[in-house]
Parts: sequence; structure tokens; C-alpha cells
Amino acid sequence: MSDESLPGYTPPPEAAVPDLCDLLIEARYVLPIAPHGAVLEQHAVAVRGGAIVAVLPIAEARARFEAKETISRPEGALMPGLVNAHTHNPMTLMRGVADDMPLMRWLHEHVWPIEGAIMGPEYVADGIAFAIAEMLRGGTTCCNENYFFPDVQAATYKRYGFRARVGLPVIDFPTAWAKSDDEYFDRACEVYDQWRHDALIATAFAPHAPYTVSDANFERIRMLSDQLDVPVHLHTHETAQEVVESQKKYGQRPIARLDRLGLINDRLIAVHMTQLTDGEIALCAERGVSVAHCPESNLKLASGFCPIGKLQKAGVNVAIGTDGAASNNDLDMFGEMRTAALLAKAVAEDAAAFDAHSALRAATLGGAKAMGFDHLVGSLEPGKQADIVCVDLSALETQPLHHVASQLVYATGRHQVSDVWIAGKPKLRERMLVDMDIDALIANARQWRERIGAVAVGD
Amino acid sequence: MSDESLPGYTPPPEAAVPDLCDLLIEARYVLPIAPHGAVLEQHAVAVRGGAIVAVLPIAEARARFEAKETISRPEGALMPGLVNAHTHNPMTLMRGVADDMPLMRWLHEHVWPIEGAIMGPEYVADGIAFAIAEMLRGGTTCCNENYFFPDVQAATYKRYGFRARVGLPVIDFPTAWAKSDDEYFDRACEVYDQWRHDALIATAFAPHAPYTVSDANFERIRMLSDQLDVPVHLHTHETAQEVVESQKKYGQRPIARLDRLGLINDRLIAVHMTQLTDGEIALCAERGVSVAHCPESNLKLASGFCPIGKLQKAGVNVAIGTDGAASNNDLDMFGEMRTAALLAKAVAEDAAAFDAHSALRAATLGGAKAMGFDHLVGSLEPGKQADIVCVDLSALETQPLHHVASQLVYATGRHQVSDVWIAGKPKLRERMLVDMDIDALIANARQWRERIGAVAVGD
Repeated sequence: MSDESLPGYTPPPEAAVPDLCDLLIEARYVLPIAPHGAVLEQHAVAVRGGAIVAVLPIAEARARFEAKETISRPEGALMPGLVNAHTHNPMTLMRGVADDMPLMRWLHEHVWPIEGAIMGPEYVADGIAFAIAEMLRGGTTCCNENYFFPDVQAATYKRYGFRARVGLPVIDFPTAWAKSDDEYFDRACEVYDQWRHDALIATAFAPHAPYTVSDANFERIRMLSDQLDVPVHLHTHETAQEVVESQKKYGQRPIARLDRLGLINDRLIAVHMTQLTDGEIALCAERGVSVAHCPESNLKLASGFCPIGKLQKAGVNVAIGTDGAASNNDLDMFGEMRTAALLAKAVAEDAAAFDAHSALRAATLGGAKAMGFDHLVGSLEPGKQADIVCVDLSALETQPLHHVASQLVYATGRHQVSDVWIAGKPKLRERMLVDMDIDALIANARQWRERIGAVAVGD
Repeated sequence: MSDESLPGYTPPPEAAVPDLCDLLIEARYVLPIAPHGAVLEQHAVAVRGGAIVAVLPIAEARARFEAKETISRPEGALMPGLVNAHTHNPMTLMRGVADDMPLMRWLHEHVWPIEGAIMGPEYVADGIAFAIAEMLRGGTTCCNENYFFPDVQAATYKRYGFRARVGLPVIDFPTAWAKSDDEYFDRACEVYDQWRHDALIATAFAPHAPYTVSDANFERIRMLSDQLDVPVHLHTHETAQEVVESQKKYGQRPIARLDRLGLINDRLIAVHMTQLTDGEIALCAERGVSVAHCPESNLKLASGFCPIGKLQKAGVNVAIGTDGAASNNDLDMFGEMRTAALLAKAVAEDAAAFDAHSALRAATLGGAKAMGFDHLVGSLEPGKQADIVCVDLSALETQPLHHVASQLVYATGRHQVSDVWIAGKPKLRERMLVDMDIDALIANARQWRERIGAVAVGD
């Protein structure tokens, strides 16, 4: 498809005097994500001051821009950095510690005892640093974090220049992070205040789940999220059991209860959503709820199938998340995007459901929109932040190259990500992390292996 | 006087005279697959004359063997080469040519017109060579091929020293391979005869599917497969539509019809099997049918869900296949194994279903058993052929390393395969193909891109 044929495409104005820019990235393909489905050949992205200033044919770019640095990727495809819309990144240090067991046994006999022994700022900071390296190596540039110690999370993401929205946890029982309802809210507001003007880091309320948060706490969250204009990041309708128990306890399914509490709105990032009636789908569409779909976690924990084909048709914004590496067991957004695209078809009983371009959008702009970051990132458009990844399609595994979007979704491995920029800053260059010491990170993870192994059952 | 007669003589321990071997591979872990679930630390595999002679602790191996070559992989895990139990490898050249559309449109408007234009020995040979490179780079050492021109297939696998069982196609209509029923069978028997004594290559009857093969042809296949003792490799119960149409046409579901025709036995490799009653599962278990599960193809074409958790519990041998790259879109057995393990849990509604060790077994010994190759390969046991892969687990993405089997199934990317041997011969060494020219293969695939693109619709 040539770019001229795209509806609404306007060629950039020609400039007689070269514009200055910091970075010009030239590639075989550019997939800007907006407009939907566009595949531009032999295009370049020009970056200035951390933002995209133009997406245009290479020849025009060379004529128009004088770039401090030009990077050429003649076999590469540029796309927006992947947005992981739901993750618990400190748990990357628990990758594979306990698999192949029912959720409650997994939690009670493994995850919670281990967390009880190691939870604290050091674990959170080390886990997130480790996760950032994995995310960058796999083309992820932004994540929706959901864990304890959001102060440490925020500082760690900031330290490595990684874009994140950190969750301010609220749960009805004491944890290492807070001992009482008031303390959860006090600490949440402190962390919110500290990061409210940051360019990379933002916050969201992260009530754990409908079965662990009271009406009173949900009401408080609704009031604060309205007042502060921050999203609410919530696991919900994850399992059939959760829905049944809500009906028993509240006489309502979780979505109906959340609606009663005023939370079914465009600030809600509803994670999992494997149990949905058509009425609930229509309600989410009408209210602008975003769904963070975590297919591999839903499969692995036997939670069920989120009907993203139906959600997409109804107009619900669909995002994709890996969930934590303790239940996945990776932060591979290429893999997650592929699983989402494959699974959606079987669930919808329609091989045309959730096509490659839909999967690419969900994994980028869909996530950005869910997180309230779509004015900043999620597509390669002038004015947005330069969160960009380059995928090397020259590998045997992505040849012959009939259709680039198909290749990216159905055949590309995350190790084919060659370069990553966040806000125009290089983070991965020809597969090398620019500002992280990978050997030190791995050595540190091995130490955590020993510490966690000492607590883990059945090792 | 012989020294035996000396008083106090003690004969030297056997280990004092080293055994000779061709290759000793030392690794951090060895997963022999048999016995089921075994994980050996700091073990070695000794190879002589293309076969495994011992699997033993490294220290013992060094004492016992004098090896022509010793390879040390202190961060590696050795396992049997992966066995792809169902594939159409020439179609690798059509990877991604037509995605995200219903099966019948995909076949009628894309695959068949393209095949009509390019089908022939050159396409089959080039496609298989390309696929072999992809398989080797991903740790696959053996495949169950199902396509036209089995003579060319066999010669190509043989040329590159790759283990395969090639399908002898039977279908009720003329193709480039054969024009009549008699010609299908004559050519099948010729190819069978040519390869019957080969150490690497064998044949199987490959009737296309119940809806494209008559009772008479199935009866002929049954007679020949009994007489020649070769497996029958058949797509069946792939979709609900197939089952409904069989009931209309034959008054029986395909499995009942196949049973009437004498084909439900331990020679049958039943591919897909997404539509199964409990009675059919019990019948397959009783008769020793093997199921080749192709989860990514089943998802992508919206065919349905094969209940491998139930099949495994019933005692049915489960193997894993990628299907062709035109409907997957890769030959990634690590990815397929992961998808199988994840999906099985959601389908069984049991997070403990089909655990990591089960997935590893299905992708190795399960495939070997299905193909009638389990006396040769599928596990690392003395006497078996040395089809071995080494996976490098030192990458950040597979750290920290709590449980090696979990890591291999849920977190490893196929690009972490460092080394591959088939019958003791090195095929991949530190990620480099030993006897294939990867640049030439890619250049050739790009030529096929042009030829196929000239035929393909909608480019």
C-alpha cells in the first residue's frame, strides 16, 4: 500500500531551508499505527527535543532536515514502542518460581509466603530495573505498573528513563506498604503529589480487585480519581469465581457494583475481563472503559477467555498486558500480541477477528489510550514523544516478507528488536542496552534466585 | 607368569581404561525426557557413531570417556531435539501471504491460486531447505512432513541430514503430483520403496482429510499401511463443519467412519482433533491413536480447541506440530509448546493441566512416538540417535532460573538454542548453521517473494 492512497493522508509541507533535528531514523518500513493500518515504505522519522517532528519519505527527510544523528535501518520496521498495559514488574524476580498449579495454591503456598519474606524497597527497585532491561530488549517503552511501593517504582522507572504509570495500591488488609485504609490513601496521595508534573512518570489508583476492596474504599478512590484526574487500574472479572462471589456478597456482578460506585467510566482500566455479558460489553463501550487484555496469564491460570473480538466490535478500547512474569512467565509484548491475535479468532469463532493491524494498535495506541497517555505516545505522529522501536525483519524467520504487519504480529521474535528510543533518547542500540549494565543486572537476579529459593517451597 | 597369579593382585577398575567416544557434551542441565520429569544437573551426554552411549555426571563422564571432541555449555540445558509432528514445510515460502481471513477464502482466493501457479519440485525443494534452516535455528531436529512431491521432500531432507517422515499424499482430485487414484498410489509406493531402508528418512501415508478422501482410497491406505507397517498422517476433526458434513454425507462422524474403515489404530497420527466427544477420546486411547496438536493453527483459523488435557488424562499420546507457516506463521516449536501448555489449562479449566514437563515430552518423545520414531529419538537415552539441542539459559529473559523446565516452556525464545546435533552431526554451532548458507537461503526466499507476489491477490 502506498501512503498516498491512505484516506486523510496529507503530505508534509516542503521546506526550502533545512530544519534542524536531533535524530533522523530512516527505515524500510514505518508503521505509524495512526492512521490505522498504514504501512509506509522507505520513510523516516525526524525527532527534535524528544518529540517526533515529522514522518515522511526518506528522500524528503534528507532534503528537509539537517540531523545531528542519522540512523539507517534498511531492513528495519519502525513502530511506536510497545505499551504493556498491565504488569507487576518486581515479580520478574519470581519468574517461574511456581507454575502449573491452581491460582489459590499458587498464591497461598508460593507467591504470598515469598513476598512476605522479601517485600520491600530493595526487592521492588531491583525487580523493576531487571524488568526494564527485559522490556527494552523486547521493544516495550511504557508500562502500567501495579505493585507495592509505588514511590520506589516511580524512582526506578525515572532513573532509567522508562515511561510508566505506577499504581497506588489500595487493598483492604495491611501489607508492607501500608497498614490501614488511611495509610494507603495518605501514601497514595503523597506519591501522586511527588510525580504529578513529571514528563515520564504518572500515577493511577490501583485498587487490587473487587473482592479485596470495600465499597467505602472504592468510593474514596472514585472521588480522588475524579478530583485528581488519574486513572483507576483494577483487576476485575478475572475469573468466574470472582463474579459468583460478588453476587453472593453484594447481590451484584462486579461491573454492576462498580457502576453503582461510579467507577464504570473512561478512567477505568479494567484488567482481565474474561467473564462478560453482552450488556456489560455495551456498558463498557458506552462509558469509555478500557480493557487491558492479558491472554497468557488468563490461559496459564485457567481464568478464561476475554472476548476482545466482541469488545473491539462494540467500540471498547482494547489494550494488551503481560501481567507479572510470575504468571506468564515473561514481559514479551510481541509474544503477548501474537497470543492475543491468535486467541481472539478462536474465541470469536471467526478467523478474520482481531487482525494483525488491530493487534499492533492494541499493543501500542490501545495501551496508551487506556493509560491516558495517548496524547503523548502510542503512535508515530508529529507532536508525540519519540518512543520508537525498530524491528529487524531481515532474519530468516521473518522472510520472505509478504506483509509487514503480519510478520510483526505472527512471526517476529522480540529478539529482533534492534533499537529503542524513549522520548528520543536511545535505550537499545543494535541490541545493546545503552545505559544499563546487563551483566550486573543478571548477577543481581542470580542473588535474588538464592534469596527467593531459600524461602520457596518444594525446591 | 601372568600378573593375575601374583598374590594380592587387584584388577584395575573398568573406568581405568577410557571408553572412546566421538563427542562429549557437558552442560549445566540435561533434561532427558525419559524418565518423565527428570532434570539432571552438571551432566554430560556421550555420543559414538551418531548414537548416545551414556548420560552421566560430568565428573564421571570425564573419567570414563576419551572424547574426540568435548563441548562445554556451563549455562546450557541439553534436551532431545524438538519433533514437529505436523507441518507443510514448502509453505514456509508463503509465510504471511494471506492472514486474518476465513479458511475457505484463504484457501480459494489465496493459497490454492498461488500453489496452482508455483507448485513443482523447485518450490518444494527450496521451501523445505528454507524450512530446515528455520527449524534448526529453533531446535527442531525431526518433522512429520505433509505436502506434495514427497520424492523431492525426501531428497531435500536427506541432503541436509534432517530427520523426517514424508507424507505420501492421497486426495480425490488431480494435482501437480498425481492425476488419478492409481497414480497417487503408484507414486506413493515408489517413494516408499526408495526410502524404506534409510536411516534418516521414512514415509507415511498422508490422506488429506476425511472430506477429500473416499472410502475406497481409505481402504487401500489401510491395507497398504498394515502391509508395509507405515503410519497414516491425517488431518481430522479439524473443524465443527467437517464433522457436520461427514454426518450428512456418511451418516457418521469422521472418527466413526475411519473406525469402520479400520483406520483407528496405533498407526494413525490424527492431526488437529478439535471436536471430540468423551467416547471418541476413550476410543483413541484404547486403540493407541496419536494426536498431533497444532494449537496456533487451530487458533488462527478459528478451528477450535483440542482438549489435550483430557486426551493426556485418558492416556492418548499427544504430539505437537506447527502446521504450515502459511497458517501459523512460523515453525517455532518453542512457541508452539508454550501455546499448547498455556491453552491446555484454560481449555481444561485447570491451571495444573498439561504442565511444563508434559509440554516438553509432547514436543519431543510424544512426536517421536506418533511418528513411529520413538525407538530412535525423542529422549536422551543410551542407544538412541544423538538428536540433541542445547538451550542457552544465561539470557536475561530466562533469569533468575528457579526451575529449568518452566523456563524452557514458558520463557525461552527459540533464538536461545545455541547448538543442534542430528545423529551426532553438528547442524547448529553457537547459533551458526554448520552446513547451510543462510545468506543464500534468504536471497532465494526473496526471489520466491517476487514470484509469489506476482500471483498473490491484494498486494
